[in-house]
Amino acid sequence: MRNLLVAQSGGPTSAINATIAGVIMEAHASDQVDTIYGAVNGIKGVLEERFVNLSEKVPGEDELEILCQTPAAALGSCRVKLKNPAEDDSQFQEIIRIFRKHEIMYFIYAGGNDSMDTVDKLAAYCKEYKIEDIHVMGAPKTIDNDLVGTDHCPGFGSAAKYIATTFSELERDCHVYDTKAVTIVEVMGRNAGWLTAASALARNNGAAGPSLIYLCEPAFSVESFLDDVKKKLEQQDSVLVAISEGIKDKNGVYISEQVQSGAVDNFGHSYIAGSARVLEDIVRREIGCKVRSIELNLMQRCASHIASKTDIQESKMLGMTACRCALQGKSGLMASVERLGSHPYQVRYTAVPVCEVSNQEKKVPDDYINEAGNDVTEKMMEYLKPLIHGETEIIYENGIPKHLYLY
Amino acid sequence: MRNLLVAQSGGPTSAINATIAGVIMEAHASDQVDTIYGAVNGIKGVLEERFVNLSEKVPGEDELEILCQTPAAALGSCRVKLKNPAEDDSQFQEIIRIFRKHEIMYFIYAGGNDSMDTVDKLAAYCKEYKIEDIHVMGAPKTIDNDLVGTDHCPGFGSAAKYIATTFSELERDCHVYDTKAVTIVEVMGRNAGWLTAASALARNNGAAGPSLIYLCEPAFSVESFLDDVKKKLEQQDSVLVAISEGIKDKNGVYISEQVQSGAVDNFGHSYIAGSARVLEDIVRREIGCKVRSIELNLMQRCASHIASKTDIQESKMLGMTACRCALQGKSGLMASVERLGSHPYQVRYTAVPVCEVSNQEKKVPDDYINEAGNDVTEKMMEYLKPLIHGETEIIYENGIPKHLYLY
Repeated sequence: MRNLLVAQSGGPTSAINATIAGVIMEAHASDQVDTIYGAVNGIKGVLEERFVNLSEKVPGEDELEILCQTPAAALGSCRVKLKNPAEDDSQFQEIIRIFRKHEIMYFIYAGGNDSMDTVDKLAAYCKEYKIEDIHVMGAPKTIDNDLVGTDHCPGFGSAAKYIATTFSELERDCHVYDTKAVTIVEVMGRNAGWLTAASALARNNGAAGPSLIYLCEPAFSVESFLDDVKKKLEQQDSVLVAISEGIKDKNGVYISEQVQSGAVDNFGHSYIAGSARVLEDIVRREIGCKVRSIELNLMQRCASHIASKTDIQESKMLGMTACRCALQGKSGLMASVERLGSHPYQVRYTAVPVCEVSNQEKKVPDDYINEAGNDVTEKMMEYLKPLIHGETEIIYENGIPKHLYLY
Repeated sequence: MRNLLVAQSGGPTSAINATIAGVIMEAHASDQVDTIYGAVNGIKGVLEERFVNLSEKVPGEDELEILCQTPAAALGSCRVKLKNPAEDDSQFQEIIRIFRKHEIMYFIYAGGNDSMDTVDKLAAYCKEYKIEDIHVMGAPKTIDNDLVGTDHCPGFGSAAKYIATTFSELERDCHVYDTKAVTIVEVMGRNAGWLTAASALARNNGAAGPSLIYLCEPAFSVESFLDDVKKKLEQQDSVLVAISEGIKDKNGVYISEQVQSGAVDNFGHSYIAGSARVLEDIVRREIGCKVRSIELNLMQRCASHIASKTDIQESKMLGMTACRCALQGKSGLMASVERLGSHPYQVRYTAVPVCEVSNQEKKVPDDYINEAGNDVTEKMMEYLKPLIHGETEIIYENGIPKHLYLY
């Protein structure tokens, strides 16, 4: 028997299940795979032998379609990093034992930085011990878009489309009153500002979009921020601000940590607020106008009802690519998207050594951010625009999107 | 000349522009209206004579369609209550003078409680002074669904569909890890829990949906809440809680006000948190598991990309009804939906005296809430289900929904 195992790891996205769908499609299409298994809760579920039979759970087109529009990780996730095998290889021995028991020859792991670390270590372990009939491949996934070795990451385009649409709707909402008001919207991203930059896509059809955009890469100055907001308030009633969760001052201290450290409640417990909430209080105090903060929170990573068609298609293709590589006997690689051009948008699917990807972060380059550090450049817009292109045809039942349950 | 003026007031919704579209369609179809005007920023814009010519701005089908999918109030809004004419009728004299100047015979005002108060006062003023050629009609609008005299309100169904979909997506997102975690989601509604109840619609296709639902009508007990959460945590890993913004204790004090009154930051400024945020801190302190709070914030009222088709159609019909009544010489009424049945769902459009509607609130009845006060009953589900039925076919351009700009 030659079986295949697929698993998911890291934070959920709207597109990660399309990668699983791609793996299943490619495995089905080949004559090299007998049974397709999914591990529940990532590598943790592998170690606990919690497997579901995907050949049975996803038998045909209909289930594949619903799987692609199901948000989050349909196989569950985990945040487990394997130990360094040089120090303790018991986890690796156990994984290989379990693979042998279930006759698993192909293992595809979809996830972000930490997951690619798992792929890297496991493939290296197999290589070192000359386990040549087990092939380990990675598939990229992260809304943060911070993986190196790929033009962009599955999940990012759909989150970007949600953010662009939501900013365009929020702009309309905030515009209805003719009084001075500031709305500060916090977007996910502790170390990379890609998602916050996607707010600029609300300008795609000529609308003003966010008035100011602060990514987490440049040092954030509260003084400059207040100056920027005051200037905008002189020109317009409603000022809509996009900020990264992870904005930091010039010393690298998160704005959120910095400002609120002394805030305590009746019981002496300190409050932990987001960066938007902290800036809301500063604007109220220093400018005194109406101000509101909004966190896009988990919605930005799970709003699959407004997924990007481009993103879902690419996620599927990356799953297929990862599976194909494994079936070809490759190991220790991550499926990747290479952009051939933006006009027209063209990509090709390839694979890169996962050791070049794991434990690294792709930050926003300087020339994607304007000089004042309060907006993005045309270069960023060029990069982002194709990624939110197209709408998936969501299947609804009783007024809400249909989802597939695998466990 | 016989001109018509339409305006919007109160909080924005995803459906209020469909009401304007309905007014325009009905006015176009009749031979009684020469020019259709829109006042910018509601009655405030009327008093300031800030009018746009809707006959020019919305000339045909294409613009009407985009208007219907545009969120918030395309004509802007205001939060102005007219003075009591018995004490000071200068505003009313001014409105009539402006109406005469622009030859306005028909005035349609779409909004909530306060807006219906404006319709009521203006219609009564016209009646008292025998101004028989000016006809004033109201059209209901509020995501809160708290207007009396109508089975439900335009805007509510779309907000409910957003909430149902978002809870079904959040449930998937929160389910991916196999660790104990509580997610508390705050839904709008200071005095009426209708919107929070809509979270239960995430169960429509067999999913568990929110584990616990607390509306603002029953007295909220922090002790019972903690007991409920603890019990759920014994049964499952992920506990998803829906709570109304306006949950209050048995003395009618908002939970948010009550708990955090002593919280101050470094500068001595007090923090004002939402009810979910307050409960998050309580769960962290008293239970100690992973906990997160989420505010659906403005997104729940402006996410027109996932509007309910039923809601948008009804909103349009209510605009048409309000316009037709005005053209028939009626005044001082609010267009209203009467439900004839839920199986199959059938409604008829009618109009009710606006004096019976203004300054009142429709709260959730007792038998729509379960005895423990932590969920809704089947009666509520029956009421809610048809309102989120159907999807509007949104027109996208460059990856985001198209919107219409009227000023």
